[in-house]
Amino acid sequence: MASYGGIDLGGTKIQAVVVDEDFSVLGSARRGTPTSGGPADVAREMANALRDAARAAELEPAALAGIGVGSPGTIEGDNVISARNLPGWEGSFPLAATLQAALGPEVKLGNDVQVATLAEFKLGAGRLYTSLLGVFWGTGVGGGLILGGEPWRGRGGAGEIGHMVVEINGARCTCGRRGCMEAYAGRAAMEEHATRLVEKGRKTELFKLMKERQRTRVTSGVWARALDHGDKLAHQIIDRAVVALGAGVASAVNLLDVEGVIIGGGLGVRLGHPYVKRIAEAMQPHLFIDSRPPHVHVAALGDLGGAIGATLLLRR
Amino acid sequence: MASYGGIDLGGTKIQAVVVDEDFSVLGSARRGTPTSGGPADVAREMANALRDAARAAELEPAALAGIGVGSPGTIEGDNVISARNLPGWEGSFPLAATLQAALGPEVKLGNDVQVATLAEFKLGAGRLYTSLLGVFWGTGVGGGLILGGEPWRGRGGAGEIGHMVVEINGARCTCGRRGCMEAYAGRAAMEEHATRLVEKGRKTELFKLMKERQRTRVTSGVWARALDHGDKLAHQIIDRAVVALGAGVASAVNLLDVEGVIIGGGLGVRLGHPYVKRIAEAMQPHLFIDSRPPHVHVAALGDLGGAIGATLLLRR
Repeated sequence: MASYGGIDLGGTKIQAVVVDEDFSVLGSARRGTPTSGGPADVAREMANALRDAARAAELEPAALAGIGVGSPGTIEGDNVISARNLPGWEGSFPLAATLQAALGPEVKLGNDVQVATLAEFKLGAGRLYTSLLGVFWGTGVGGGLILGGEPWRGRGGAGEIGHMVVEINGARCTCGRRGCMEAYAGRAAMEEHATRLVEKGRKTELFKLMKERQRTRVTSGVWARALDHGDKLAHQIIDRAVVALGAGVASAVNLLDVEGVIIGGGLGVRLGHPYVKRIAEAMQPHLFIDSRPPHVHVAALGDLGGAIGATLLLRR
Repeated sequence: MASYGGIDLGGTKIQAVVVDEDFSVLGSARRGTPTSGGPADVAREMANALRDAARAAELEPAALAGIGVGSPGTIEGDNVISARNLPGWEGSFPLAATLQAALGPEVKLGNDVQVATLAEFKLGAGRLYTSLLGVFWGTGVGGGLILGGEPWRGRGGAGEIGHMVVEINGARCTCGRRGCMEAYAGRAAMEEHATRLVEKGRKTELFKLMKERQRTRVTSGVWARALDHGDKLAHQIIDRAVVALGAGVASAVNLLDVEGVIIGGGLGVRLGHPYVKRIAEAMQPHLFIDSRPPHVHVAALGDLGGAIGATLLLRR
């Protein structure tokens, strides 16, 4: 039975898996995404994460039948172009060739969010639907589309749900534009917002929890812990994110009338069902056909969905 | 050679055409949409408009090979359900059977905006594209989608671009919700907004021009005339509409990455290229991939697109 490697490159973490032909996970590993350096440094950590996952599966990387990679940014063949939220990755970088040279097996690239959406459609919470919107609530807010049973990529750049405008002349987004959903709901934007509020004298446990957990960023886990502790500022910022997600996702549903919405990503998976329910409730007042809202689910494949989905790139 | 009838039922006007097999217009006619009464009164005026168009084509309605109808609201078989912007049309009404009894030939129903988008895709400004967003800027703001060369209807309710949220907790929309694009850009919402500003003491020629033209509503033609006259309030309200359209249409493009955008509808066609150019410019700061914006065109079939498109319902 063949085994496959899968790597999900996120803005905060790199998740690697080794799966068998039935997508059962034989081994997995996680590393932090480098916060400095450039694409070559990121690729080195990706290779290390895959080696860790192969070790957990008691396999050599060279024994894998192929390695699939879900990456942010625009994928053109074997290259990744301008992956925002990653250090020093403004230009094009030959990610597939670099990983193949380091690890051995053939490497195929796909867009991280499209790959994770396809995984939920084929293997996860979207199995029952023929039309699906995947919303990946993490460092940024990414979107993936399945329409009529097939991925919809437009001219290659479809799915940028995080940059739908929910507030004209609104908050500055990490992309430089104004009023994007991600400016309210992205983990990076929320961390910046918390930093500014602390500078203005507001109190929060967020940064203390971050240091206790030896993190350099306010990760999904740190947000979850602060919410559990009843941290007022954390609740205020997350509430604002839920409102923005409700408006933005409902707008997408008004346009596309999909059957299902899957909420994944670091924050979506970590905060889980109670928050996904709150997002569905925040969508309701904006839905044009409010008598039959779409089904809204947490990503069933959890944190591993992107990496498992990346192995689908090798099966078509 | 067979001839076909087409009727486009709008919130402000009813447009009827008679075309031949090559979609050449043999005759056309227009009537105002009744502002009171109910679906039966609207259907009577639709039949009268089609009779006028047939007379202009020197044909009897009974001689037509079929009649296609583009209607607002949800189409379920031969019925139209809750057509907003039309008088007393909250429930279901058997529009096809009513028109067939009045006129003779077989009647087929489609959604007005989907029909107009299909017409632009097959015969108009969208002929060069395989993915297309039709934006119909009139009494409301409707949207139609062609993705991968095929209409995308979702579960039957796709295309409600006018109810994408551009401002959380924003202006009250005619649909009852808040912050929808249509609350800023729909003709009906703009007229209400002008009325409120006049009540607060603002000056405008809009209502004087409306009466001079013997209209009961501030039609697209009245808006165009007021803009030509340099009416400050008219310019202010239309500028606000352009900003909202820019944000909303750009959001749809960020999600779908379509090749082309067609701006039609009463206002889109009447205000034409200069305003479509302004909408494209207002989209630009919100486009995530701003280096290759979609092509943005005025609807090439103009005011007749919806009615000509309705005849496509008989050809498939």
